[in-house]
Amino acid sequence: MSWISIHENTDFSIDNLPYGVFSRKNTNEENHIGVAIGEWILDLFVIRRLFSGPVLSSQQHVFTEKTLNNFIALGRPAWKEARTYLRSLLDKENGTLRDDLCLRERALVRQSDVEMHLPVTIGDYTDFYSSIHHATNVGEMFRGKANALMPNWKHLPVGYHGRASSVVVSGTPIRRPNGQTLPKDDSPPVFGPCKLFDFELEMGFIVGKENKLGETISIENAEDFIFGMVLVNDWSARDIQKWEYVPLGPFLAKNLGTSVSPWVVTMDALKPFTTENFPQDPIPMKHLVHEDPYNFDINLEVAIRPGCATKESVVTKSNFKYMYWTMKQQLVHHASSGCNLRVGDLLASGTISGPEAHEFGSMLELSWRGSKEIPLEDGVTRKFLLDHDEVIIRGHCQKDGIRVGFGEVTGKVLPAYPISQ
Amino acid sequence: MSWISIHENTDFSIDNLPYGVFSRKNTNEENHIGVAIGEWILDLFVIRRLFSGPVLSSQQHVFTEKTLNNFIALGRPAWKEARTYLRSLLDKENGTLRDDLCLRERALVRQSDVEMHLPVTIGDYTDFYSSIHHATNVGEMFRGKANALMPNWKHLPVGYHGRASSVVVSGTPIRRPNGQTLPKDDSPPVFGPCKLFDFELEMGFIVGKENKLGETISIENAEDFIFGMVLVNDWSARDIQKWEYVPLGPFLAKNLGTSVSPWVVTMDALKPFTTENFPQDPIPMKHLVHEDPYNFDINLEVAIRPGCATKESVVTKSNFKYMYWTMKQQLVHHASSGCNLRVGDLLASGTISGPEAHEFGSMLELSWRGSKEIPLEDGVTRKFLLDHDEVIIRGHCQKDGIRVGFGEVTGKVLPAYPISQ
Ligand SMILES: [Ca+2]
Ligand SMILES: [Ca+2]
Ligand SMILES: [Mg+2]
Ligand SMILES: [Mg+2]
Ligand code: NI
Repeated sequence: MSWISIHENTDFSIDNLPYGVFSRKNTNEENHIGVAIGEWILDLFVIRRLFSGPVLSSQQHVFTEKTLNNFIALGRPAWKEARTYLRSLLDKENGTLRDDLCLRERALVRQSDVEMHLPVTIGDYTDFYSSIHHATNVGEMFRGKANALMPNWKHLPVGYHGRASSVVVSGTPIRRPNGQTLPKDDSPPVFGPCKLFDFELEMGFIVGKENKLGETISIENAEDFIFGMVLVNDWSARDIQKWEYVPLGPFLAKNLGTSVSPWVVTMDALKPFTTENFPQDPIPMKHLVHEDPYNFDINLEVAIRPGCATKESVVTKSNFKYMYWTMKQQLVHHASSGCNLRVGDLLASGTISGPEAHEFGSMLELSWRGSKEIPLEDGVTRKFLLDHDEVIIRGHCQKDGIRVGFGEVTGKVLPAYPISQ
Repeated sequence: MSWISIHENTDFSIDNLPYGVFSRKNTNEENHIGVAIGEWILDLFVIRRLFSGPVLSSQQHVFTEKTLNNFIALGRPAWKEARTYLRSLLDKENGTLRDDLCLRERALVRQSDVEMHLPVTIGDYTDFYSSIHHATNVGEMFRGKANALMPNWKHLPVGYHGRASSVVVSGTPIRRPNGQTLPKDDSPPVFGPCKLFDFELEMGFIVGKENKLGETISIENAEDFIFGMVLVNDWSARDIQKWEYVPLGPFLAKNLGTSVSPWVVTMDALKPFTTENFPQDPIPMKHLVHEDPYNFDINLEVAIRPGCATKESVVTKSNFKYMYWTMKQQLVHHASSGCNLRVGDLLASGTISGPEAHEFGSMLELSWRGSKEIPLEDGVTRKFLLDHDEVIIRGHCQKDGIRVGFGEVTGKVLPAYPISQ
């Protein structure tokens, strides 16, 4: 229990303590690092001098930075020390901050009074394709049931390099892209607004430690390299993707924007929600095998709120536990070529679909390539996203009365710019 | 003519003046921005107070930075002002620096006395696939002559997102990666050292101006966004690529390292070597059409020096002018989705192959997928790269007695780490 009064159902319980970067609205104050607690944020810039543990006492300056990167780069001992200290500082028995009304006044700010920013500087963004239900669905739609999964899919976590510059924080509007598409197979391509605009329900992890170029990461050490997780919406232009992606993969269909939630939930906070790894058959190659469970029971949902509607409609419910490949396996595979990962890199899961039709993680799957309507509230339907639709992704863990959540990642679709062509 | 004595055949004539970042060997001195002139470097940190033009007089601090990004971000007027001033400062009639022996001593350093660094912070790296001869060769090898070029290839400059973290400066050794490959179609994949390790002869341009997320770049304004060019070696693991790349494109086969030359040659220096655009049929969509020539006659060559050899062997000669898509078209296409480009981004050409077999830009093509030997000096041959091979890419323009060159980008292949599997 904390001395801060916290709603029972909050994502940001004292068991969570996720990190983010915020600035106070209507001030000129710079971005500060904070920790979410209930409806509040604890400003770590303000209380930085309280960190007196063996690692952080000489590293308080990391809490004067504008992103989490330098804090994260201190490594797991620092992550643990900060978490332990913050839990104790917020505990109802601890008077350090509770009774220092002056410091408390400066250190606590309401989430409704701030603007959130990207929590980390993302050097590189990689997107995997690790949900077997999603890969099977998409494969079936485009190549038929017999060839749904590519031959490589169960041997390695398929992934590709995404665009780091266009990763944006929740709330940033996303403009429907113009692009080339092929309306009919035997007619020439045309340029115009994307007609099949979609979300992708994903999560991602933030790299917590670097490896040098040419060096790899062993599966035994993988945990040291994974700091925490965020919700991800990997906006996708299906018609643009279909025309452009052979043979080098998705490009403009994905680089128009990728939204992430502002709060990074640490792996330490997620530990109680660890669940069995997804059964893998065949057994992966030796360097990718780990026996310890590193899968997480995270409830996910996506809602759409049309521009003119007040009510949102939940269109799918999925769970992170459906991931076939673990984050450790993704990480180790990524570095197995000697590729250097840097602190702050974002490695996303790929669309997370469950086995059932109401658990699919994209409109492409929910509408089965536009062949059926997705019902929303008030008799409205969708096959793909319309202009002014807001997409809201939420995620949380719940077990034994403990709740640890991610809040949400939202984004509203702006209409495409008119083109003169 | 300059008051600095310069070899007639230098890449770094007074008509060139490329920018780079260096540090003096055996000192603790920080990285400085410099301009190459003959065998020398003019240290812009040291002479920064001499920039007294309308733009740069109040922006001299950009020459105290460790990368070119902030200088480049000042825009084309600053690029032109710097170039004009540096040409006049180095002209034999100008005594400002020539006669100030004390300043001159500090401002000029021999290239042999420095270590070169990455000239820019690269936020994102994109690799195109814009040589029609290369795309046709690769397509023919993998899909047969009839389907060599994919249907989209002549409608848009195909490209994909690369890995920014592993872009390294010339001279950095490159370790042969381990990875998954499929030795035979009907047997399981194996993990081990890449057997088909290759170079790719490429060039790239450095983005000089940003566009905001959701905004595009018009072809009429494209020139403002292109600062200068470098040589690129996009090292490639052909066997790893073949197994991993369907359906999301190359990943580990490319992210093990990408080498760039240390000197950025500006578009102003390249202007005299402008040549006709490659004929395009069909005519591209309107937003990609420009009538003005924006192709460049840049002679390129690749040499291999085996680890135990003293002599290098030139294995191919090509030319940048073989590019089907221009850099303006690549840039405009890239931003057409609303993808935000940032100052310092690297947009590479893709492998530049000429029409003739001795002009192919990769060993994959030169050995025609390993079906023939590539002869080196002293009776040695290669199909793909062996450990300890050094690859040297050079490029220069020459016309009417003027030479503007890129120097070289080199890298030596280190053996793969042994694996326990
Ligand atoms: Ca995705
Ligand atoms: Ca390439
Ligand atoms: Mg995206
Ligand atoms: Mg590369
Ligand atoms: Ni501040």
